[in-house]
Amino acid sequence: MRTYDIIKKKRDGQTLVQNEIQQIIEGYVQGTVPDYQMSAFLMAVFLKGMTDEETFHLTDTMLKSGETVSLAGIKGFTVDKHSTGGVGDKTSLVLGPILAALDLKVAKLSGRGLGHTGGTIDKLESIKGFSCDIPTDKFIEIVNRVGVAIVGQTANLVPADKKMYALRDVTATVDSIPLIAASIMSKKLAIENKGLILDVKVGSGAFMKKLEDARELARLMVSIGKQAGRKVTAVLSNMDEPLGEMIGNSLEVLEAAETLKGKGPSDLTELVKILASEALLISTNRMINQSQASKKVEEVIATGRAFKKLVEMVQAQGGDQTVIENTDRLPISKDIVPLLAENSGFISAIECEEIGLAAMMLGAGRETKEAKIDFKVGLRLLKHVGNKVEKGEILAAVYVNPLLNNEAAIKRLSSAFHISQNPVQPQKLILDIVS
Amino acid sequence: MRTYDIIKKKRDGQTLVQNEIQQIIEGYVQGTVPDYQMSAFLMAVFLKGMTDEETFHLTDTMLKSGETVSLAGIKGFTVDKHSTGGVGDKTSLVLGPILAALDLKVAKLSGRGLGHTGGTIDKLESIKGFSCDIPTDKFIEIVNRVGVAIVGQTANLVPADKKMYALRDVTATVDSIPLIAASIMSKKLAIENKGLILDVKVGSGAFMKKLEDARELARLMVSIGKQAGRKVTAVLSNMDEPLGEMIGNSLEVLEAAETLKGKGPSDLTELVKILASEALLISTNRMINQSQASKKVEEVIATGRAFKKLVEMVQAQGGDQTVIENTDRLPISKDIVPLLAENSGFISAIECEEIGLAAMMLGAGRETKEAKIDFKVGLRLLKHVGNKVEKGEILAAVYVNPLLNNEAAIKRLSSAFHISQNPVQPQKLILDIVS
Repeated sequence: MRTYDIIKKKRDGQTLVQNEIQQIIEGYVQGTVPDYQMSAFLMAVFLKGMTDEETFHLTDTMLKSGETVSLAGIKGFTVDKHSTGGVGDKTSLVLGPILAALDLKVAKLSGRGLGHTGGTIDKLESIKGFSCDIPTDKFIEIVNRVGVAIVGQTANLVPADKKMYALRDVTATVDSIPLIAASIMSKKLAIENKGLILDVKVGSGAFMKKLEDARELARLMVSIGKQAGRKVTAVLSNMDEPLGEMIGNSLEVLEAAETLKGKGPSDLTELVKILASEALLISTNRMINQSQASKKVEEVIATGRAFKKLVEMVQAQGGDQTVIENTDRLPISKDIVPLLAENSGFISAIECEEIGLAAMMLGAGRETKEAKIDFKVGLRLLKHVGNKVEKGEILAAVYVNPLLNNEAAIKRLSSAFHISQNPVQPQKLILDIVS
Repeated sequence: MRTYDIIKKKRDGQTLVQNEIQQIIEGYVQGTVPDYQMSAFLMAVFLKGMTDEETFHLTDTMLKSGETVSLAGIKGFTVDKHSTGGVGDKTSLVLGPILAALDLKVAKLSGRGLGHTGGTIDKLESIKGFSCDIPTDKFIEIVNRVGVAIVGQTANLVPADKKMYALRDVTATVDSIPLIAASIMSKKLAIENKGLILDVKVGSGAFMKKLEDARELARLMVSIGKQAGRKVTAVLSNMDEPLGEMIGNSLEVLEAAETLKGKGPSDLTELVKILASEALLISTNRMINQSQASKKVEEVIATGRAFKKLVEMVQAQGGDQTVIENTDRLPISKDIVPLLAENSGFISAIECEEIGLAAMMLGAGRETKEAKIDFKVGLRLLKHVGNKVEKGEILAAVYVNPLLNNEAAIKRLSSAFHISQNPVQPQKLILDIVS
């Protein structure tokens, strides 16, 4: 079939078969299908949609465009977590050790951050000596021994996605649920875990603004994962305000350690417990029930076994574990500026994106790929949506680099807080579970 | 506004304003908007449509991308006819002289044909000495004196259309009524006639297969023309079988001359009379009625005045007018192969495209731009849809070049005729008039 006819078929709302999808995607990666045909195709997909089966074939073709990572050397149930992204999301740092403590295996490939704050790799590298650049055999050995390791992604995973995403980004074809699902799932399925927990963020600070869209994305990703023979569950969680209290690299490592000791903020604690329970449920083929799973998760936190796994992982990856054992030693700025409430009332919204951009301006994130992150800076939110505040009360503690002029960042932070005269209902964190 | 936002706006079904349309089209012509953004935009237009006003702005921006042809030097009511194209369509050769005889002014810029049979220019060049390559001042002088001249198009009209059409052709975005209307009308409006008669062909042999689509295209083109301040009428005519009897270059000149003498086939005669009447109606601001207009058209044919205009035009453009005065002198092959009916019954269909391709195989059309046309060859259809035929009866006379093997062409011709056992209703020629 000619590329033209594949575009036309999708344009007319018909369902493409596997080899038609393979032909256009493989042709695009190889360069025989030009950008202008792919962008017309993507717009047709955007406007006419794809069935679950088409989306699976798209995902499968995309993932086969590059290398895949075999985890065959790891004994036990390998499981990964993917978050659709948000501000203050240090879930991976907490969840990995909990899952390891539950005897699951977490072989995580992660990325660096661009914008807002650093990625998981950046956060870990704020620990002195910690290396994410580890040879594969050592990585596998650590996962088998400790249960968790987090390294930088070096394999050429899913080049089709890189090329397609760059094109979607300039042709207004990003916000398509089948295309988003295929993009995420091709990258996750390229790493051959047995299980996958998807943390789909919903709300003003997330990619998915509406619950119904997020639910559809979750349903589709679970469907793709199952068609690929993986065990998958998606948790829909609120991202109308940042997750937890800390934003910034060392600050988030601190909060992760506290949460693993059972002293973390309630929202982050609740979310990681749910994610860990769901991972346990899929790993046991649901031979245990939800409340049994929750109990086991609480147990590994209460006994300190989960926290110990973080220490072990840091040590195994060359990091100075004493900064985890004694978090006072983490490199956190001593220059703290209080952010004060300008009015009395109830916090009605905390704009995630503004908070993230302000954190970047403080130095916690990269504006360009080459920029260096300042691990020490960031902020701690002392108030959440729904809280009552008095004028002049502290909304957040801002950890700054005193050599910078932080006025603009602090102004931005301040404007991210909305205060209403009427009482505001605190928001529900877990919105749905799709499996 | 960024190109991205213009694409997104159309993708979301919103209406673009004039300067947004200008920005993306002008950017595309200048090369600042790349093909891949334009093809995503075109697919969004294809699937989301355009309002009449948007389509007018699109047309206007396209026509302003290149040169325009002023006809200010011509005294009187300048009028052009455009046909959406079909097989055996020699309407321009007949209509031009009739309109000149009615004291309208026809300054026609025409093209060469590719595929099927030659274009109007090719047909005229089958007359010995006839030149379509005439300087502008001479062209204007002939139109003022004779009333009609037909020359080749040399100006760089509507480069936006050339670039957009090439892209649409490979991205499955051709069959969009707003895009078709803008493409046709930008080219027609670039020549500054006062009036325009659109002959919109409908049926299996036409670009528009369905009456409702053709009616929408006609309505939209009339709307664009009026927004541009021109007088426009569209006639919808049947193209379920070739128009007239002759297909081939000299053969069509012969048929045009016969029709101007009142001895042409009934379908061609009916169509040119309607088109001429409509031109007369718009030129007089409908101060006369339809039946008065028809009467004037019949008069110029009956008195020989229309035929005389063809002779004058041929003479003015350097052609040997004696081949028109005595059409026996036209270069037409003497080698005639009869095409016989293989069964008895009623003609249910004559596939235009197959007839056209067979004519090209005989030598009457170009397969590539460089190919040379054989003016002498072609065919004469002796039967029309609805006619009763006996097995062995002659369906068509095929004028061949005896030096070629014409077997495949004749086989193709034969398979273009469909014969049914049940009586078939002859088809109505004029389907609607939109003004």
